[in-house]
Amino acid sequence: MSRKYAIGVDFGTESGRAVLVDVANGQEVATTVHLYANGVIDERLPGSAIRLEPDWALQDPNDYLEVFTHAIPAILAQSGVDAADVVGLGIDFTACTMLPTKADGSPLCYLPEWRDQPHAWVKLWKHHAAQPEANKLNQVAREQGYTFLNRYGGKISSEWFFPKAWQILDEAPDVYAAADRLIEAADWVVWQLTGVETRNECTAGYKAIWSKREGFPPNDFFKALDPRLEHIVDEKMSRTLQPLGAKAGGLTETAARWTGLKLGTPVAVANVDAHVAVPAATVLEPGRMVIIMGTSNCHMVLGSEEREVPGICGFVQDGIIPGFPGFEAGQSCVGDSFAWFVEQCVPAAYEREAAASGLDIYQFLEQKAALIKPGESGLLALDWWNGNRSILVDADLTGLLLGVTLATKPEEIYRALIESTAYGTRIIVDNFEANGIPITEIVGAGGLPERNKLLMQIYADVTGRPIRLTGTGQGGAFGSAMHGAVAAGRAAGGYDSIFEAAEHMASLRDETFSPIPANQAIYDQLYREYVALHDYFGRGANDVMKRLKRLREDILASSH
Amino acid sequence: MSRKYAIGVDFGTESGRAVLVDVANGQEVATTVHLYANGVIDERLPGSAIRLEPDWALQDPNDYLEVFTHAIPAILAQSGVDAADVVGLGIDFTACTMLPTKADGSPLCYLPEWRDQPHAWVKLWKHHAAQPEANKLNQVAREQGYTFLNRYGGKISSEWFFPKAWQILDEAPDVYAAADRLIEAADWVVWQLTGVETRNECTAGYKAIWSKREGFPPNDFFKALDPRLEHIVDEKMSRTLQPLGAKAGGLTETAARWTGLKLGTPVAVANVDAHVAVPAATVLEPGRMVIIMGTSNCHMVLGSEEREVPGICGFVQDGIIPGFPGFEAGQSCVGDSFAWFVEQCVPAAYEREAAASGLDIYQFLEQKAALIKPGESGLLALDWWNGNRSILVDADLTGLLLGVTLATKPEEIYRALIESTAYGTRIIVDNFEANGIPITEIVGAGGLPERNKLLMQIYADVTGRPIRLTGTGQGGAFGSAMHGAVAAGRAAGGYDSIFEAAEHMASLRDETFSPIPANQAIYDQLYREYVALHDYFGRGANDVMKRLKRLREDILASSH
Repeated sequence: MSRKYAIGVDFGTESGRAVLVDVANGQEVATTVHLYANGVIDERLPGSAIRLEPDWALQDPNDYLEVFTHAIPAILAQSGVDAADVVGLGIDFTACTMLPTKADGSPLCYLPEWRDQPHAWVKLWKHHAAQPEANKLNQVAREQGYTFLNRYGGKISSEWFFPKAWQILDEAPDVYAAADRLIEAADWVVWQLTGVETRNECTAGYKAIWSKREGFPPNDFFKALDPRLEHIVDEKMSRTLQPLGAKAGGLTETAARWTGLKLGTPVAVANVDAHVAVPAATVLEPGRMVIIMGTSNCHMVLGSEEREVPGICGFVQDGIIPGFPGFEAGQSCVGDSFAWFVEQCVPAAYEREAAASGLDIYQFLEQKAALIKPGESGLLALDWWNGNRSILVDADLTGLLLGVTLATKPEEIYRALIESTAYGTRIIVDNFEANGIPITEIVGAGGLPERNKLLMQIYADVTGRPIRLTGTGQGGAFGSAMHGAVAAGRAAGGYDSIFEAAEHMASLRDETFSPIPANQAIYDQLYREYVALHDYFGRGANDVMKRLKRLREDILASSH
Repeated sequence: MSRKYAIGVDFGTESGRAVLVDVANGQEVATTVHLYANGVIDERLPGSAIRLEPDWALQDPNDYLEVFTHAIPAILAQSGVDAADVVGLGIDFTACTMLPTKADGSPLCYLPEWRDQPHAWVKLWKHHAAQPEANKLNQVAREQGYTFLNRYGGKISSEWFFPKAWQILDEAPDVYAAADRLIEAADWVVWQLTGVETRNECTAGYKAIWSKREGFPPNDFFKALDPRLEHIVDEKMSRTLQPLGAKAGGLTETAARWTGLKLGTPVAVANVDAHVAVPAATVLEPGRMVIIMGTSNCHMVLGSEEREVPGICGFVQDGIIPGFPGFEAGQSCVGDSFAWFVEQCVPAAYEREAAASGLDIYQFLEQKAALIKPGESGLLALDWWNGNRSILVDADLTGLLLGVTLATKPEEIYRALIESTAYGTRIIVDNFEANGIPITEIVGAGGLPERNKLLMQIYADVTGRPIRLTGTGQGGAFGSAMHGAVAAGRAAGGYDSIFEAAEHMASLRDETFSPIPANQAIYDQLYREYVALHDYFGRGANDVMKRLKRLREDILASSH
């Protein structure tokens, strides 16, 4: 019998990544990355002079399809694997990343009449311009006593489905009216592969206020937001949702041609990038937190019972692993702030020195930052360059750097930024534990842990938890391949459950980052300072960040 | 009768500047700058492996003499003026910049046995390592009810004479014992020119707790600090002080050889750089504030009567202009923070772009920053990169930047730094007015106003005062030349008073920077936010900056 393979495709913020995995042992046989031609659209619409407002972040759905047409043929060619031996395909996506389409799945932004309308495009997860809608939604929900808020840490984020949908209605009612469907991009790409519109429980649960027990909020709630929203679920969404690991359908003829795979190859129901990484990190039980570290951090942990935890993103029964409530928290800006720093703040002399020593600028900064002892820089930062997702759930907070002197060096600021994200993670860990979800170990997944050992040690020192790394460096794509194998089923050469798939396919590396007690002692002090600033600026004692942001928006609006 | 000239020499932080001025009309005939070979010594002693602690800042007294031997011959040669037509010479200096010498004026650091001892060198004004001594001095003075504190805004700064002298005693009692004299560098260079040790009222009044009415603090006070300090004034200083404009003496043969001037040329009593700039700015009456803007800001204003103003540097009767109490306040970090930013934070792409457009990096940043509207960046900074001189008088405070997002650009940070120094100036202006010293107009002097028009407009908008600029761009050096003319006296071709000298020699430019009402309205809002953060971090609500600084010092100390 020939070896069998599964393919996973992970749709990230800037690119899609495909991996071809040996179903028997989890070996990664081939992998490739395809950059989105239009990347993150946050200044102007492609091919247009139309400027976007601050806080907008769009994408082009065509960029997703090009991942199928480029990356899957590439890994097949790379590996020499016969398409007939690919038993299944799974995908995962950033979320909530959503778009309006016609009934046949055509994105509105493909249509000439809507192409110049920003609201016709994909709203990327980090589109933060629906904050007014999120605020109103939360206010109405609180006033009318809807308990669903408790599942989401007390607040619905501006990043999620209904604030984004409502922003379309508010600002472009014609687009809203023209949209037959409003759909997660995750489900949309599965639709493009299979010809079948499915909706997955995971994005619905974490991003669209759905729960297995209660379903979506009642129509009355939507009506209270805006009478035109009353029937949004029935008119533009669906109440039929598929569990993780289910088969959405088989590849259509078109999709088989795009990918080079066989007609009818099983495709798993879509998943969220962070969630699909959990089984790939061998985590199938409570107690170990998986942190997917990249542009942002997602913190995933399983519970033994449902619990309302303030300030987290949410929990969904069976939302990550069947049989467990899956809890999610997040930091909206991690690698993004390091990239910002590298782009906007690293002096020419450092670039030259890095080039001379044959290091990329990140390695160079890491090397310099590693020589600095905890507490030595005198710096402390609040990691809110892109707002705060957990545990304050407030996109209007902004970054802070404190302790700067004339002696402050770039590598000290860089280290302070890393440390600030570690404090941000610790506040999430502490908050879970204070609410009855114990966390004894951390598993790091995603792109950052592999690239930045200093970051891992700082996270271990700050959180006081040992940290291990996933065997795969492919993050979500690997987990998606596991789900592809489950969608195929054992009879077709895959597995019948994610537990079975994990047993054979998932692994951790041997290396452990253990907290260094002397560093922990210093970081405990610094963390207390962080918490004091976090609460002062984040919990209403001084709303200066929000006032400055509002002033900025007023000024930008008045100068348009 | 041939034209008559006066020479002024201004000793700055990095260089000395000489100017040759026509006594009749204030025309600047020649000027030159001589860089100090050893500049600011803050890492290692010159020619030695001896490392300095953080917060140290030393200088080499020989660098000062080289200004005489290079810059004065240079301006004589440049102008072709006959040395016989130079009627007088004045100097001004940063303060408190002080050094230990033998009885004959030899700096201890010239002597081989002391050359490796950091305490034997000149302590520059921005040497901040005497903070523990300043804290103890203030505590003892408060506990024992000494009212002199009230003349200095309630606190003696670590930058001043007695904390620096006491630090020598604390850390190097052998240096203290070997020092026959402890003297301001200002007075020391006049001593080197004239062979006569004089002490000027201005530095004594502003930096060494002296007043015309009360003299120095009593010996009992010094004894309470440390019994070995009891007789510091009589043993190592002098109770005989010379008023501004007085003649200290004539050039010695050696000094005449150094400078190319005539033996016996009158030399004025030394002055402080900021103070000497006031008559050069045409300010000889209350109501108009002179701000000398450079690496730091000095704010000088005359009062109509003595007033105790909290948080200022001090007031001295006749300390700036005879007949008026002269009030001084200061910001310890202005141009220095812009230079820090340019050195540590400007990305390579900007350097390339600036070079391509033929601009230096400051001009390039100014051009970009000028396009940003007040409030548009969403940023707010506390200008404490080098502590806070007025009105908190606390060298342990550190810089803060708030409101950073992933969209923040370098020019926005640069503008926020400029704005933060403008808020720092406004808090000083407001504090003077709240304490009965009205300020209706500002005159900008020093290097920055000329180079940076954006800065001047921001200061006008933030303070709500019109700003004019001095006619001279030579700052202190011009005022020193005026004092040189006064030291000569009318009979010798100079003037009999600074009022007379100002009438003929000083001028303002025609240009006025007027507050723009729309900008003022925005800056009023931002200033309120600044004040809230200023008070929160600066007045004890959250001493995080001090705790971080102490932690940093502990860690650096333990790793030596």
